[in-house]
Amino acid sequence: MMENLLDNIQASGDVKKLDIRGLKQLCGEIRGFLVENISRTGGHLASNLGVVELTVALHRVFDFPSDKIVFDVGHQAYVHKILTGRKDKFATLRKFGGLSGFPKRAESEYDVFDTGHSSTSVSAALGMARARDLDGGHSNIIALFGDGALTGGEIYEALNDAGHTKTPLILVLNDNTMSIAKNVGAVSRHLRNIRINRLYFRSKRHVSNVLDHIPLAGPPIKHMIERCKTWIRRKVLPTTLFEDMGFKYIGPVNGHDLGSLIACFEYARSEKKPVLIHVKTVKGKGYPPAEKHPDCFHGVGTFDPKTGAIAPGGECYSSRFGKKLIEIAERNRLVTAITCAMPDGTGLVEFSKRFKDRFFDVGIAEQHGVTFAAGMAAAGYTPVIPLYSTFLQRAYDQTLHDVCLQDLHVVFPIDRAGLVGADGETHQGVYDLSYLSAMPNMTVLSPSSFAQLEDMLEYAVNVHKGPIAIRYPRGGTQSPYPYDGFVPNAVYTRMHGHDVTIITLGRMVRRAAEAELILRSHGISAEITEVPTAHPLNEAAIIAAAMKTGTVITIEDNVLSGGFGEHIAALLMDKGIKCAFKSFGFPSVPIEHGTVDELDKKYGTDAQTIADTMIRMVRKQQDGKDKN
Amino acid sequence: MMENLLDNIQASGDVKKLDIRGLKQLCGEIRGFLVENISRTGGHLASNLGVVELTVALHRVFDFPSDKIVFDVGHQAYVHKILTGRKDKFATLRKFGGLSGFPKRAESEYDVFDTGHSSTSVSAALGMARARDLDGGHSNIIALFGDGALTGGEIYEALNDAGHTKTPLILVLNDNTMSIAKNVGAVSRHLRNIRINRLYFRSKRHVSNVLDHIPLAGPPIKHMIERCKTWIRRKVLPTTLFEDMGFKYIGPVNGHDLGSLIACFEYARSEKKPVLIHVKTVKGKGYPPAEKHPDCFHGVGTFDPKTGAIAPGGECYSSRFGKKLIEIAERNRLVTAITCAMPDGTGLVEFSKRFKDRFFDVGIAEQHGVTFAAGMAAAGYTPVIPLYSTFLQRAYDQTLHDVCLQDLHVVFPIDRAGLVGADGETHQGVYDLSYLSAMPNMTVLSPSSFAQLEDMLEYAVNVHKGPIAIRYPRGGTQSPYPYDGFVPNAVYTRMHGHDVTIITLGRMVRRAAEAELILRSHGISAEITEVPTAHPLNEAAIIAAAMKTGTVITIEDNVLSGGFGEHIAALLMDKGIKCAFKSFGFPSVPIEHGTVDELDKKYGTDAQTIADTMIRMVRKQQDGKDKN
Repeated sequence: MMENLLDNIQASGDVKKLDIRGLKQLCGEIRGFLVENISRTGGHLASNLGVVELTVALHRVFDFPSDKIVFDVGHQAYVHKILTGRKDKFATLRKFGGLSGFPKRAESEYDVFDTGHSSTSVSAALGMARARDLDGGHSNIIALFGDGALTGGEIYEALNDAGHTKTPLILVLNDNTMSIAKNVGAVSRHLRNIRINRLYFRSKRHVSNVLDHIPLAGPPIKHMIERCKTWIRRKVLPTTLFEDMGFKYIGPVNGHDLGSLIACFEYARSEKKPVLIHVKTVKGKGYPPAEKHPDCFHGVGTFDPKTGAIAPGGECYSSRFGKKLIEIAERNRLVTAITCAMPDGTGLVEFSKRFKDRFFDVGIAEQHGVTFAAGMAAAGYTPVIPLYSTFLQRAYDQTLHDVCLQDLHVVFPIDRAGLVGADGETHQGVYDLSYLSAMPNMTVLSPSSFAQLEDMLEYAVNVHKGPIAIRYPRGGTQSPYPYDGFVPNAVYTRMHGHDVTIITLGRMVRRAAEAELILRSHGISAEITEVPTAHPLNEAAIIAAAMKTGTVITIEDNVLSGGFGEHIAALLMDKGIKCAFKSFGFPSVPIEHGTVDELDKKYGTDAQTIADTMIRMVRKQQDGKDKN
Repeated sequence: MMENLLDNIQASGDVKKLDIRGLKQLCGEIRGFLVENISRTGGHLASNLGVVELTVALHRVFDFPSDKIVFDVGHQAYVHKILTGRKDKFATLRKFGGLSGFPKRAESEYDVFDTGHSSTSVSAALGMARARDLDGGHSNIIALFGDGALTGGEIYEALNDAGHTKTPLILVLNDNTMSIAKNVGAVSRHLRNIRINRLYFRSKRHVSNVLDHIPLAGPPIKHMIERCKTWIRRKVLPTTLFEDMGFKYIGPVNGHDLGSLIACFEYARSEKKPVLIHVKTVKGKGYPPAEKHPDCFHGVGTFDPKTGAIAPGGECYSSRFGKKLIEIAERNRLVTAITCAMPDGTGLVEFSKRFKDRFFDVGIAEQHGVTFAAGMAAAGYTPVIPLYSTFLQRAYDQTLHDVCLQDLHVVFPIDRAGLVGADGETHQGVYDLSYLSAMPNMTVLSPSSFAQLEDMLEYAVNVHKGPIAIRYPRGGTQSPYPYDGFVPNAVYTRMHGHDVTIITLGRMVRRAAEAELILRSHGISAEITEVPTAHPLNEAAIIAAAMKTGTVITIEDNVLSGGFGEHIAALLMDKGIKCAFKSFGFPSVPIEHGTVDELDKKYGTDAQTIADTMIRMVRKQQDGKDKN
């Protein structure tokens, strides 16, 4: 039996001891390890299978952690984690207290920058490179990003800045033609052209080599010859976008050929200027089910490693949103749908097939997506642009400046609002209710059931005018109470009681119901008031609900700062309503990965903590009354 | 005497009646009109002088408002306003109730999209173009943007989306080598190369013409020949970035030559595909002082039209910030400064000369700027990145995701926080206190005097760890009270009183002092508590201040939603502090242009309104006590 090489890899430098044959074997073992582990824990499989050789080659050539690598998005850092002493923690991947699915500085000195959102890597790496230059250092700074990241504007801002200086920086473009879904846009087509024109690149290399070997004399002549060479290059050789932006371009190179990768990285290391290495990889490489359906194995739950059969997910808000939107679009020809590279995650796949001309995938480009929607709305259409809460953050300014200030009718279904679970800090959608409710003309709805979501969507598209958001959670948590329709701005009493009032919305209606059961067992009668229109508040109804019992708590799936509870507290203060009051929601801290139940428990938004607090409040109120 | 042509221009179509000679004369008259009017009102002079011929040519060729034009940023729309019936309102430019300095749909049917921030025009225009396609329409949609806008990532997201489809769209690049300051970056260099290589473009056009005239036969042969032609083009002809992205490129064309401009626009109109016209203009054209110092005449106050002498501005927070930062940087070699294309406005010009290697102008690229700062901070430096409040909105996600979640030590001096006055809706900096105080690890300071700003900056750079913002207003409004140092988290009693407590900060300390005088004249004794550390709150000190009088008002230069007052209201509710309470700040509505005093009055944050409210509150409290 062959020796297992992976067992001997404990620190970054260990791969340097292996020859090409050993490295190849190691790559195979890593693939087996990934499939085996992720089939049990879930996680990002396809992207990590695609970068096995790439990551091994990087560790073979560079000296981490004195050299530094920034992973764009960061879900493709598993192999890097395996190679830097974290292999044995993979059973805890994405679990509460376990290994994060993204780079984490707190986890390892080999993780130099935390990522989670797209297109940040070149900016961060350039910051590190310029810091190195100020220090007079010589370490290599690498940014690894996918072609999907190239559809996000921030990376162009960074390329524009990096490309005009001589700061040495190594950019590795992992080109697999995919974001989560198939990539879109002009740059994607440009990359395809480069990939297809192999011949032209081969000849280009040839001409370049000849030019490189023209002997150089003293400085003035050297300068003149260099200028001639540049002129010939530009005349004879087509350029890439990256060369237009000032980078030395190397590639395209086969991302599963260790020898080529190592040669390219060694060359890049020697260049001492901004270099871009274009690496072609296959997403899901080496595991046939993932190669065939890379989108299904992008972020995947548990699956059967033998067959690739994925445990089926239950119905969720995303899928119900997608179905309802199709029904609405059939009746209303002015409805369009826009996605930022996530047709699947946001439930738009069916829509994209059914209404090809009214569906627009703009790439990982939330800023453009939202202003584009504003343009459509200004022209009389009703664009619907579902975004994950955490990614809408990218379009804060566009939502405020382009949509809200002009009071344009754009519908924002906000998916994964509130806690998202295993993706952790960078993906928790707990800020949107705060920042959206500060924006002019914005209405924010928060459904607690699929049926309510559907009615809200109908209202948002066909009745409402102006910007409107509907925030719903990941998964399918629903209210246990019977649903009786949605009236905008109405407030609903879901349970009648006389000791305390719980004012809540969305996912937290279920938490309120759980707390109510505990309270009942303690002889406390709780009234539950659901406020589906989170913003603006129906002030009269909320004041009435608060005054009924005089003891009020609010529960929300959002940070407390600027959220639902604070708005209600401010309202009650402003109107001089005296009552005992507590708000439940999240503190403004990075909220780590774990299940939603685990996180709710940690941050005190679980039923037991809520009930305990309420019991203390009621006892205190009663004590106060007894004393009078 | 020559007939005055400008007098006869009342509607968009009127320029169509003039021949080239008449158009030239008109352009001269428009220049005179602009200089004369803006010298009295202030406004954006240099950029508008640069686009006189360009705008006239557009109106000559296209049929507005059925054709549509989106102005990027929008400060260069004055000529468009003059040509569309708003000439007579220029005396009210940027004044309360008067003409806006930016396009406004509410102002004219010729303004189809409101702008103010950079790099949005292509997105909005593409939205309109696709809406037109869905309608089966044929109008021309134009986006006019400067080369400065090309440093902002959103426009690349839009070019990437627009360039890969056949949607007809006319992009006009107004290339004057400037943002507000000189442009930076690789793309800027790329444009310079294009401008220099006139010969190469001339020869390129020649080859293209020859290729265009190869006769085409039936479809299959046509296809083959087209492929050959494309191949020859790519081989022989260097391409521009825009061609790489899928646009038909026309240019560069002299932006002050009406004949060439009209010919280019007519050609673009006939193309029916995505076209980019590269127009070279001179910022400030035709007015020597503005040509010489286009940055000084970008956004200018009143000036002497004869000599170009600009009325000197008083000392302000920006200049004091810049001076203090130099002093700090002399002592601390780890301090770096980053600007997003605004070295002058943010007070960094001197710093940029003094510490060349520690100064970074990244372009109109707030997203990249903030992540770049995060990268530097992760590498041990202390980057200081001053941004106008309204432009920091662009980097909401980067501030949260890249800086705050990692608790990195980045200093955010937030200039133009609160009301900014004449720039209006799109520039009011009234949201930052809300959105920043919801972010993990963020501290927000708010100085009420230059001396306090200086001490805060010293603290933020040299003592504090983690993300920290210092928000200060446009101009130089200071507290009237003696300054006695800054202690982080401390709360200061500026005036002792016993009837009411005013809790306030920043610019509003002065409003509080004015209100206190009015209250005193009514026999009401007000305590004034200044809270320089806006977030997190010193809870104990604020509770003590509130309890002292039992009647509390808060005043802030920010929207109420999620702001300072709401946080205090929530705190008092949470702690069960009973008191009469009102918050003064701005509603979440678009706040138009006008002076800060006029706007404070309109929105009830002036001293008189505040005092009147407090008098009512005190009377009510007294009535309540009398009844008991």
